Amino acid sequence: MSYSPLLLRLIDSLRCMPGIGQKSAQRIAFHLLERDRDGARVLSAALLEAVNGIRHCKQCRMFAEDDLCNICSTQSRDASLLCAVESPADVMAVEDATGYRGHYFVLMGHLSPLDGVGPSELGLEALEKRLAGGTVQELIIATNPTVEGDATAHYLAELAAQHTVAASRIAHGVPLGGELEYVDGGTLSHAFSGRRMVG
Amino acid sequence: MSYSPLLLRLIDSLRCMPGIGQKSAQRIAFHLLERDRDGARVLSAALLEAVNGIRHCKQCRMFAEDDLCNICSTQSRDASLLCAVESPADVMAVEDATGYRGHYFVLMGHLSPLDGVGPSELGLEALEKRLAGGTVQELIIATNPTVEGDATAHYLAELAAQHTVAASRIAHGVPLGGELEYVDGGTLSHAFSGRRMVG
Repeated sequence: MSYSPLLLRLIDSLRCMPGIGQKSAQRIAFHLLERDRDGARVLSAALLEAVNGIRHCKQCRMFAEDDLCNICSTQSRDASLLCAVESPADVMAVEDATGYRGHYFVLMGHLSPLDGVGPSELGLEALEKRLAGGTVQELIIATNPTVEGDATAHYLAELAAQHTVAASRIAHGVPLGGELEYVDGGTLSHAFSGRRMVG
Repeated sequence: MSYSPLLLRLIDSLRCMPGIGQKSAQRIAFHLLERDRDGARVLSAALLEAVNGIRHCKQCRMFAEDDLCNICSTQSRDASLLCAVESPADVMAVEDATGYRGHYFVLMGHLSPLDGVGPSELGLEALEKRLAGGTVQELIIATNPTVEGDATAHYLAELAAQHTVAASRIAHGVPLGGELEYVDGGTLSHAFSGRRMVG
């Protein structure tokens, strides 16, 4: 004995979302059918509209509905600064936390040859063209401090050097409010070797 | 600066699912847009079809596409046995694990007056009618061993008594393969008071 075909199909489809397994999919399906059918209808429409309407900004690869995203189409931003990040969420994090007023380049991932993600999957031809254009003075590399993020950062720095654009990487070390005792060894060692003279 | 309107709407709609907060919704939206647009289209259609096509079995309240669910429409099952469970997933668990060949009644929840869930929300009028019908000989109560599940079980047992139908409750105690040392006190105490004579 099993669920009705439509319910089976719903549970199966829900599993296309990352982090959602069989049990979570069941729980979500039951919840939507039992308590929130309106929410399910809205979600269904939002999914379809997003998939059909959202594409990548032609300049920075951010998700956008038009050719250029909000940031790239803003005239007042400083075009001499370009910040490379791994994901759209990183753009939002930098925008929210810092006063950065330059442009972005969203890699939509990191170099990972084993998963078939090489320079062309990250749109690095477009980045190279932009570095060669002469407007960008500094490439700020803000990939994640992971093995893949570090490898990507190294690759980007070389790319910048080829086009004689200055490259910088955001600082890594002990987070504010963190206690040395509880910070992992790698971070602490990095913080030591990256120490700066005071005064 | 924020995401494009369609993306914001998608992230917002995804949050109608239980257990999905802002960060998970973002991660799911990015994953679907970047790596699985086909999956998103399939999910959108499955949601809409499920919401429009799935209703409750008129007899047992299980999710079904027709008036009666698979189990209620099977002639060969034993109509003298009725098992009350809290959710459709419980029906599947009992079907998979036991040789039970009777019918079910799915409460779709448990009594919880503070959340506004009373007897009528659980369809207990329909259950009462069925108990009064004369076909059911035994009501097997398989609600969860939680405070609300116990209260619901108590209510169901009284309902059965009113219609002179025998009521039983599935056994609770130390699970198979469990070690006494690691079983919680409530379960162990329950297992002791529910001991049965051997031989």
